Amino acid sequence: MSAPFFPQIPTIPFAGPDSRDPLAFRYYDADRMVMGKRMADHLRIAICYWHSFCYGGADPFGQQTIHWPWMAGHSIEMADMKLDAAFEAFEKLGAPFFCFHDVDAVPAGNSAREFAENLNHIAERMAAGIERTGCRLLWGTANLFSHPRYMAGAATNPDPEVFAWAAFQVRNMLDVTHRLGGENYVLWGGREGYETLLNTDLKRESDQLGRFLSLVVEHKQKIGFKGTLLIEPKPCEPTKHQYDRDAATVHAFLQRHGLEGEIKLNLEVNHATLAGHDFEHEVAYAIANGLLGSFDANRGDPRLGWDTDQFPNDHRDMAMVLYRVLQAGGLTTGGFNFDAHIRRQSIDAADLFHGHIGGMDTLARGLLAAEAMIADGQLAKAVDDRYAGWQCGVGANVLDRNESLESLADKVAQGSVDPQPRSGRQEALENLVNRFL
Amino acid sequence: MSAPFFPQIPTIPFAGPDSRDPLAFRYYDADRMVMGKRMADHLRIAICYWHSFCYGGADPFGQQTIHWPWMAGHSIEMADMKLDAAFEAFEKLGAPFFCFHDVDAVPAGNSAREFAENLNHIAERMAAGIERTGCRLLWGTANLFSHPRYMAGAATNPDPEVFAWAAFQVRNMLDVTHRLGGENYVLWGGREGYETLLNTDLKRESDQLGRFLSLVVEHKQKIGFKGTLLIEPKPCEPTKHQYDRDAATVHAFLQRHGLEGEIKLNLEVNHATLAGHDFEHEVAYAIANGLLGSFDANRGDPRLGWDTDQFPNDHRDMAMVLYRVLQAGGLTTGGFNFDAHIRRQSIDAADLFHGHIGGMDTLARGLLAAEAMIADGQLAKAVDDRYAGWQCGVGANVLDRNESLESLADKVAQGSVDPQPRSGRQEALENLVNRFL
Amino acid sequence: MSAPFFPQIPTIPFAGPDSRDPLAFRYYDADRMVMGKRMADHLRIAICYWHSFCYGGADPFGQQTIHWPWMAGHSIEMADMKLDAAFEAFEKLGAPFFCFHDVDAVPAGNSAREFAENLNHIAERMAAGIERTGCRLLWGTANLFSHPRYMAGAATNPDPEVFAWAAFQVRNMLDVTHRLGGENYVLWGGREGYETLLNTDLKRESDQLGRFLSLVVEHKQKIGFKGTLLIEPKPCEPTKHQYDRDAATVHAFLQRHGLEGEIKLNLEVNHATLAGHDFEHEVAYAIANGLLGSFDANRGDPRLGWDTDQFPNDHRDMAMVLYRVLQAGGLTTGGFNFDAHIRRQSIDAADLFHGHIGGMDTLARGLLAAEAMIADGQLAKAVDDRYAGWQCGVGANVLDRNESLESLADKVAQGSVDPQPRSGRQEALENLVNRFL
Amino acid sequence: MSAPFFPQIPTIPFAGPDSRDPLAFRYYDADRMVMGKRMADHLRIAICYWHSFCYGGADPFGQQTIHWPWMAGHSIEMADMKLDAAFEAFEKLGAPFFCFHDVDAVPAGNSAREFAENLNHIAERMAAGIERTGCRLLWGTANLFSHPRYMAGAATNPDPEVFAWAAFQVRNMLDVTHRLGGENYVLWGGREGYETLLNTDLKRESDQLGRFLSLVVEHKQKIGFKGTLLIEPKPCEPTKHQYDRDAATVHAFLQRHGLEGEIKLNLEVNHATLAGHDFEHEVAYAIANGLLGSFDANRGDPRLGWDTDQFPNDHRDMAMVLYRVLQAGGLTTGGFNFDAHIRRQSIDAADLFHGHIGGMDTLARGLLAAEAMIADGQLAKAVDDRYAGWQCGVGANVLDRNESLESLADKVAQGSVDPQPRSGRQEALENLVNRFL
Repeated sequence: MSAPFFPQIPTIPFAGPDSRDPLAFRYYDADRMVMGKRMADHLRIAICYWHSFCYGGADPFGQQTIHWPWMAGHSIEMADMKLDAAFEAFEKLGAPFFCFHDVDAVPAGNSAREFAENLNHIAERMAAGIERTGCRLLWGTANLFSHPRYMAGAATNPDPEVFAWAAFQVRNMLDVTHRLGGENYVLWGGREGYETLLNTDLKRESDQLGRFLSLVVEHKQKIGFKGTLLIEPKPCEPTKHQYDRDAATVHAFLQRHGLEGEIKLNLEVNHATLAGHDFEHEVAYAIANGLLGSFDANRGDPRLGWDTDQFPNDHRDMAMVLYRVLQAGGLTTGGFNFDAHIRRQSIDAADLFHGHIGGMDTLARGLLAAEAMIADGQLAKAVDDRYAGWQCGVGANVLDRNESLESLADKVAQGSVDPQPRSGRQEALENLVNRFL
Repeated sequence: MSAPFFPQIPTIPFAGPDSRDPLAFRYYDADRMVMGKRMADHLRIAICYWHSFCYGGADPFGQQTIHWPWMAGHSIEMADMKLDAAFEAFEKLGAPFFCFHDVDAVPAGNSAREFAENLNHIAERMAAGIERTGCRLLWGTANLFSHPRYMAGAATNPDPEVFAWAAFQVRNMLDVTHRLGGENYVLWGGREGYETLLNTDLKRESDQLGRFLSLVVEHKQKIGFKGTLLIEPKPCEPTKHQYDRDAATVHAFLQRHGLEGEIKLNLEVNHATLAGHDFEHEVAYAIANGLLGSFDANRGDPRLGWDTDQFPNDHRDMAMVLYRVLQAGGLTTGGFNFDAHIRRQSIDAADLFHGHIGGMDTLARGLLAAEAMIADGQLAKAVDDRYAGWQCGVGANVLDRNESLESLADKVAQGSVDPQPRSGRQEALENLVNRFL
Repeated sequence: MSAPFFPQIPTIPFAGPDSRDPLAFRYYDADRMVMGKRMADHLRIAICYWHSFCYGGADPFGQQTIHWPWMAGHSIEMADMKLDAAFEAFEKLGAPFFCFHDVDAVPAGNSAREFAENLNHIAERMAAGIERTGCRLLWGTANLFSHPRYMAGAATNPDPEVFAWAAFQVRNMLDVTHRLGGENYVLWGGREGYETLLNTDLKRESDQLGRFLSLVVEHKQKIGFKGTLLIEPKPCEPTKHQYDRDAATVHAFLQRHGLEGEIKLNLEVNHATLAGHDFEHEVAYAIANGLLGSFDANRGDPRLGWDTDQFPNDHRDMAMVLYRVLQAGGLTTGGFNFDAHIRRQSIDAADLFHGHIGGMDTLARGLLAAEAMIADGQLAKAVDDRYAGWQCGVGANVLDRNESLESLADKVAQGSVDPQPRSGRQEALENLVNRFL
Repeated sequence: MSAPFFPQIPTIPFAGPDSRDPLAFRYYDADRMVMGKRMADHLRIAICYWHSFCYGGADPFGQQTIHWPWMAGHSIEMADMKLDAAFEAFEKLGAPFFCFHDVDAVPAGNSAREFAENLNHIAERMAAGIERTGCRLLWGTANLFSHPRYMAGAATNPDPEVFAWAAFQVRNMLDVTHRLGGENYVLWGGREGYETLLNTDLKRESDQLGRFLSLVVEHKQKIGFKGTLLIEPKPCEPTKHQYDRDAATVHAFLQRHGLEGEIKLNLEVNHATLAGHDFEHEVAYAIANGLLGSFDANRGDPRLGWDTDQFPNDHRDMAMVLYRVLQAGGLTTGGFNFDAHIRRQSIDAADLFHGHIGGMDTLARGLLAAEAMIADGQLAKAVDDRYAGWQCGVGANVLDRNESLESLADKVAQGSVDPQPRSGRQEALENLVNRFL
């Protein structure tokens, strides 16, 4: 392995809430026990390969501002250097997991065969890195949106040859993910959507996408991959309308194509924001409908209409999400990936670490707040009390299918039903929660 | 029947596109044949009772500005007067349909019994009005959101007694709708949603709502109502989060609760806008998933975040929707309801007619444009051509389940798959469509 | 004075951060010294009359849910009862200030004269309340938007008689505010805006509004009122477009009409949200342009497009605002008004107190965080360092007007200007700030 | 000059509304007289260099899809080829104007000197192209946002050396624009804004920007450039907050820095959309405040939060804008630039022409509608009638400064002021306008 790429950065220690050291954790304390489990095992934090090691700061209005040594070309040597730098960062941050797309890790080469060979090459080195550092693969994924062939979608492309190319990439990456012991496989519908309905057959594209995912499920079973398949909702960008808009939209799709139970959700904070949802809503929906998978923790800006992919820095948002996740029994194969990049002006190596330290501390602080809320129990009790009427009498009969519209209406007509107003207590509950934040 | 309420308003004639008469239709020509059917039978336009005859111009910042004679009190006499005025307007506008909620038409009285009696009283008079004028009931619905008992929802209320009250109102209105020959019954989830997740059990509320709708389906079958049950999606307002957010969300809900096939969608333009959708998208989604029911044609303001409920006035939007509806075989039991009210400053009786004339002309003009686009055929051909590759070869094999991820990937690995880029032609198609608008 | 209206509510004590008493302050400690001044004197918190004592929970989709004893009619006796209840709440909350509109406090009566008499009556009782409790008037204002006469605006109305009515109400309320020792007078442009440009002369309406405000300034000087005149920006609602959209728009207006220096800003969090701004931005803009006046602290919901007027409950937002205010020397005549109401489902008297307690604690906690950030000094230093280059050399010459476009361009052409990239350090600064939040 | 770059594209003829030829104008008829002036002279349409000839289809999620021959490298030979292609397109489209940035036209080279030389080289060839084709320069501008040196702004940069570089580029381009007979010079504040307030001194940056623009004004006067200086408002993107948010914000800025009268506005449809404004509002504001300059006609998508830069295709929007412009006396130095690019999937040369043809037809059709509305006169009369009360009596006295708050209030107190409600007639006016659309 080569000389360190981040010589000025130490292994980041836990130093406690009062620390003023910007290169230390104030809350993230991997081994601290939280409700009987290590903090690290609750959060299962993952560093993403693309934003952390491939992002150069270019945006639609400007050129690259960040220049890492491994960006000097597109050779396999550069890919190796990037891998070494990545594992150095994983270790220094003490991150238990990472995530990557095929094209983040290797050049696509000049042919399908070369692409596959490059991927195999890096997978071997990755396996060694995992072995050496203990930093494991949370999930793998294939990039089905950057290459021009995908300009009109991958599985939903009007050209079946593009569908075949998508199959090629996913087959390879699913195999590699399996080989590396990855715990999930993510399908983000990069350009599965439309720019204009004028040239689009919505039903046909939905059927194509359903077919594609069925093939992925079958392949997963064939190779014996035990990880979870995940769809990542997003409402728009790059396309005007992305088919996997939000949790409920994907839920509808999965049911329609008989894929419920086979595929769960990778929910991203920024994508929820773009869809007009509180992230907490998306998480609550996923839990309520058995779709909870994994998270991309990157926040957006509530005033901006595109993916800003910023590190989370407000533990309040994360606390409520983690409260719900803990109540639901915690994460299984999923984790918290940072699909986040440093800002375009953050051109120093230290900035990359500040971003991750802030993000990891935010999650850790949120977890501790969630633990305290659960220990306190008042919030959960307030909710249970509110619905207590459904445990017996008419309420229970309704749920047990012992009432009809007619039987209920008759009771009201007879004047015996007179519901009494009860406060929703929103302000009191908000104050209660503030005690833990 | 009493003296005319709108003496200054004539029966609105069709006068053709060049007419300068503000009290004449320029496009709406009920008997004009369009693709083998009367224009009126394509559009099935309905006037809504609440906005047209109950709206007084109050808003959260100001008092009533519009004063109709029948607003002088809440007696059954006033209700009768309103009914007479409504049928006068229906006739003068030549509207083939109307829609109403229970509480639009009658006072709720002092007891459930009185409410039911009032409803029966007005239903009888309504039946006579229908008989006399030929203006029929497109759909009936119950108001489950205005009364304080519904402040925390109807079917999703934490109190099962409120659920029972909702059952009472829906039973009554479904019966009345059936009796009046209504062609649909609409369920808008007025306050089925939440203000804060802190006091909400999402899963439980979804189950309650599923149960309620199952009861409605059963009652419909029991009484032999042949019309269509419709859910009306809306993303927010009055609650922070309404469960029936958009077409896809309702689709997920219906599938989860085994209600697909039983309930279709009443899609509103303004609600699509609030949900961040083009209305055309919602319509395309409904068609693609067998959920097309009926429409509320009222537009919102793309810059404002609440329901402005304005009459449609841009035939371009309606043309594309009608193009899709015609392609899908046209409306069956559904129609175009104007869930629209005149502006708060539009205090003259004439304004009520200007609003409806503009809206009806907008729909008519859109229909004529859609007819021309279908006759032209170029747009449909462009879409078909774009997906032609899926009719044979690998494409057909994929859809026929004769390919696996592996078999497709292998073809690519062998280098025999080389998709060629093809223009999406968005600008050309936009120009093409502009020829008809 | 009558028996207590809130017998179950004690005087709210300060009980410290660890308190679990929902009817105690955890952070708001009026006499605690913060940077040499009492906390209460920094925050100058005001309770608003309208939302706290007139709000009944009605919304565009539903009826009143909250019923206070003084809502039993529109008589002057009811107005007196409301006043007594208000002062009881002011005292129990220990609020140093309150705010009110003319119509919150009294019925408008049947004539202008009666309106004025009612106002004088209540002003006398208010003066006694102020005297007795020490709770003073932060600002007065006239409601120029609820009455139907204002449906097309007040000063910007097409009818000059409406302008005259607005003058009447403002004259009266400015006089009353002066008499009661009010420290500011607020002008919210309730319906100064338009619903459609089709019927609107933008220039003329701007001139009318400029004229009106000039008359107010002249009257203020005439009566010797030493308080501050404030405009309250809002982008929309109730009108489609409100003229006082945001801080910068009002700034443009004030300059154009020669009113700069005479009128400052009352900035509201929720209005900033509706305008697409971070509230912190609006505050920073006001400070940078000498327009800082006062605040309405009520938050909105970042996902909703209307004024939800909720109590603030996230001290993070307030901390950054207070940091800027403290840096700018603190508030002078302004304060933090809660233009907030409890939720429609919060129907218990206790909810009114929970809302205020939560809001006051949020501001107090924010103030303490701001104090700590200022004591720490790192954030301010980071900003100063970033611009250090402008203190000397070319930078200083530019600002001192010693360079021309030509002279600068020539330096660059000669190759002697080679700016070096420097990190913007956003992540590091966000982490720094999190230490105090 | 080289062989044609668009051999398959003819000179685009005017063929009339019924034409089905996709490579012909249906409405744009340059010599048609409209209110006494050629259509071309009203609209002054300009093609933009960057989007039309430099856009390759890359977006934040994908690579280049469009490959023109002149994109094979960054040499001056390629720049020459691009110029030839551009003038071929200008001629084939019959566009009277074009616009460009320095970096669109030439490579920046390896030094300031080389950049300046390249610019001079292309300016000479451009002059020849202008001479030969008659297609003139509507405006020039410098790109102060793409190069990494501008990552933290140009004039508002914390580093004065970057300010100097910006001065260098603007000096050069202003000189070139002058030399080429350009009619305006545009300053778009590309990255004049902030990413986070944490590292930003708002007041200082505003002062820097004011200083910069003053230098530009002085240089303009020095070289005798008679064209108009224009600022182009945009609310966000690329930065989180752009200082030139909208027309009113720029208006405030210009007044504060004494630049009113010197600088006008270049208003873009898409930027208005992003700012939450109807474009018509921005135009009306500019006209009402003497700031009307020029337009970028590219539309955005009302559902998307970034600049989609699409060609206009809805003449309804443009008709109302042109109605206002015609009422205000028409454009002087300004015009309609297409700051629009074809879609990423529009990879055929024909698509570039379809985009422009559609855009030019949209403007032409809007102009004809505006002409008809003005000839009809009913809309203008309705507005005048609405404000008629201000021409005499109290209204005139108020505007003539013959009334005080007191004198008006006294009139009301005496009971003599009783404004009568009058309908705003929005629906009737919308129907009226629809007659011309």
